[in-house]
Amino acid sequence: MVNTSDSDEASSSLIQHLRSVLPQDGSRDALITSVIPKLLQSVADVAQALRSSHDVAAVGTANTFGDDQLNVDVAAENLIREAIAQCPSIVTASSEEEPIERAVQHTVPSSTSSAQEQYTLAFDPLDGSSIISANWTVGAIFSLWDGPTALHQDPTTGQVAAILGVFGPRTTAIVALRPPNTNTTTTTPPTCFELALSPAPPSSPSQQPTWQLTRPTLTLSPTSRYFSPANLRAAAHAPAYMALITRYIAQRYTLRYAGGLVPDVVHMLVRGEGLYASPATARDGPKLRRLYELCPLALVVECAGGAVLDPVGGGRVLERAVGDCGEKGGVVFGGVEAVREAVEGLVGMGGL
Amino acid sequence: MVNTSDSDEASSSLIQHLRSVLPQDGSRDALITSVIPKLLQSVADVAQALRSSHDVAAVGTANTFGDDQLNVDVAAENLIREAIAQCPSIVTASSEEEPIERAVQHTVPSSTSSAQEQYTLAFDPLDGSSIISANWTVGAIFSLWDGPTALHQDPTTGQVAAILGVFGPRTTAIVALRPPNTNTTTTTPPTCFELALSPAPPSSPSQQPTWQLTRPTLTLSPTSRYFSPANLRAAAHAPAYMALITRYIAQRYTLRYAGGLVPDVVHMLVRGEGLYASPATARDGPKLRRLYELCPLALVVECAGGAVLDPVGGGRVLERAVGDCGEKGGVVFGGVEAVREAVEGLVGMGGL
Repeated sequence: MVNTSDSDEASSSLIQHLRSVLPQDGSRDALITSVIPKLLQSVADVAQALRSSHDVAAVGTANTFGDDQLNVDVAAENLIREAIAQCPSIVTASSEEEPIERAVQHTVPSSTSSAQEQYTLAFDPLDGSSIISANWTVGAIFSLWDGPTALHQDPTTGQVAAILGVFGPRTTAIVALRPPNTNTTTTTPPTCFELALSPAPPSSPSQQPTWQLTRPTLTLSPTSRYFSPANLRAAAHAPAYMALITRYIAQRYTLRYAGGLVPDVVHMLVRGEGLYASPATARDGPKLRRLYELCPLALVVECAGGAVLDPVGGGRVLERAVGDCGEKGGVVFGGVEAVREAVEGLVGMGGL
Repeated sequence: MVNTSDSDEASSSLIQHLRSVLPQDGSRDALITSVIPKLLQSVADVAQALRSSHDVAAVGTANTFGDDQLNVDVAAENLIREAIAQCPSIVTASSEEEPIERAVQHTVPSSTSSAQEQYTLAFDPLDGSSIISANWTVGAIFSLWDGPTALHQDPTTGQVAAILGVFGPRTTAIVALRPPNTNTTTTTPPTCFELALSPAPPSSPSQQPTWQLTRPTLTLSPTSRYFSPANLRAAAHAPAYMALITRYIAQRYTLRYAGGLVPDVVHMLVRGEGLYASPATARDGPKLRRLYELCPLALVVECAGGAVLDPVGGGRVLERAVGDCGEKGGVVFGGVEAVREAVEGLVGMGGL
């Protein structure tokens, strides 16, 4: 196990940054000193496990959704569950691999701050299974909600934080925070930033890796010259989607599409522009899970100043509560102008 | 530095595998025991350097081709040059960052086997600079030629080996070998295989990482349901390319396009199918360098049973010698049937 975050030690600069961007009235102490550091520690642990997971084999089982499970999915799930068990403030958890909200059995006693704060975690331990065998960048997705459940809450106020763990040549993480203000005299604006894991130097390999703040503020410009067309099969029989794609090509936009939600979002955030579309039709239904994928990525993108709309009705993905762990949806996200323009073309497209 | 390949030690299984797939008449001893292990060691070194290179900044210079150089490009170039200096058999080297063939100054004395074998190395130390800041998988490309130059040789017989280093969640490498047979009584067929770097276990972090043979034989099926459209801007004014793209979409093919040559080739090899097109027009000229990109990837794909054609004339990319380090070209590669079909549509397209 990599110990990145024992709060007294190396992660003090991370905690210092979290204190500067979260309410300073003590209401988020457990989030700052325990929950986020422990989840980031699990990202470091998963990264280390992946580095030696050459045998990306199916374990012969399927998760509740019917997806084939890989041995690396199971390893990542277990490492994250271990981290959760060390966070008394995370009272409920569910994952894409085990999509039922359950009370967490903790391995450490609760503290004063954890008694005041209660969070529900929804996570996807390893998003991008289809590309991991090719050694492409994959990610982990974490969505943190206030209270003992993520279901039937207003996602805009209920979901307080999202973390994307990014497993590539480096190990990086995107953190988005939008807790409601408990103290009306101060305001803490939404924020989205990038961290990178600094490995121990070769000269002292037993030293602990630490998280560095590498991009303090990620923002998306309103327009975009990049596009990422997901669920592209839908364009085969949805003329509006085909028209959108061919228009981007004719306008000489740059194609970037890893086919993994995390790398595709991260490319957009780091580049500062982008447009990702994953519409759905009756034949090619929605691909993304609202609780484990859409809500956390929507928080990230909105905190970076972008828009995340539902291509069916054109509303915000976050304006509707999650009713069930298995719900799926379509999405268009990226810069606000780019998204508005794309959704105008898609809303009402045949078959939606 | 990571020492992965001191030939007496941990890499004996790698050397054993190389002996089994290369001529056993002693004519390739330096290639087996020194050149390939040292180049793989440099891949491990670059991977380690990238893991802590959070600051992917331009160094303020451009290489001879006018590309902006990143600090990670320079670091990778230097690590690979160090490895080359330890290979007496590599007598000449050039790179995409410094595209002039120069005699190598060695830091170790030459041995008997190295005196018999002379190789020229052409390499691209870090392909995919545009996606590395987003922490997407990138690669290094190595092309090994018999004799004191890669230029004006028949690439089919002159280029004996190619290595792709793949920097993602894991560190992997693709090795392709097609040396001409020096002994006519034995035949050594072309081969393409994958290795993965096993890091030292957390319990003994000072132990050396080692390369494992993870996929002994990579092969491409003739047809493909995947497509990777590069230089897509060309489709804006080349109707034949636009027609190819829309046909793939209408036929519900799966899009995979990282925009990095190495991850795109590796996806195809690991998946066992794929079609990558990078055609060119007068306005959107060829993007890939023949010596540093096209020749090595063509060796890899041909050794895996695929085809690599020039979309201008429809001939093999490897049927024409490289006349100059700076030459560029278009390409279509992948499964033989898929490539033949795509090139038929593209040859003679407007503007080519």
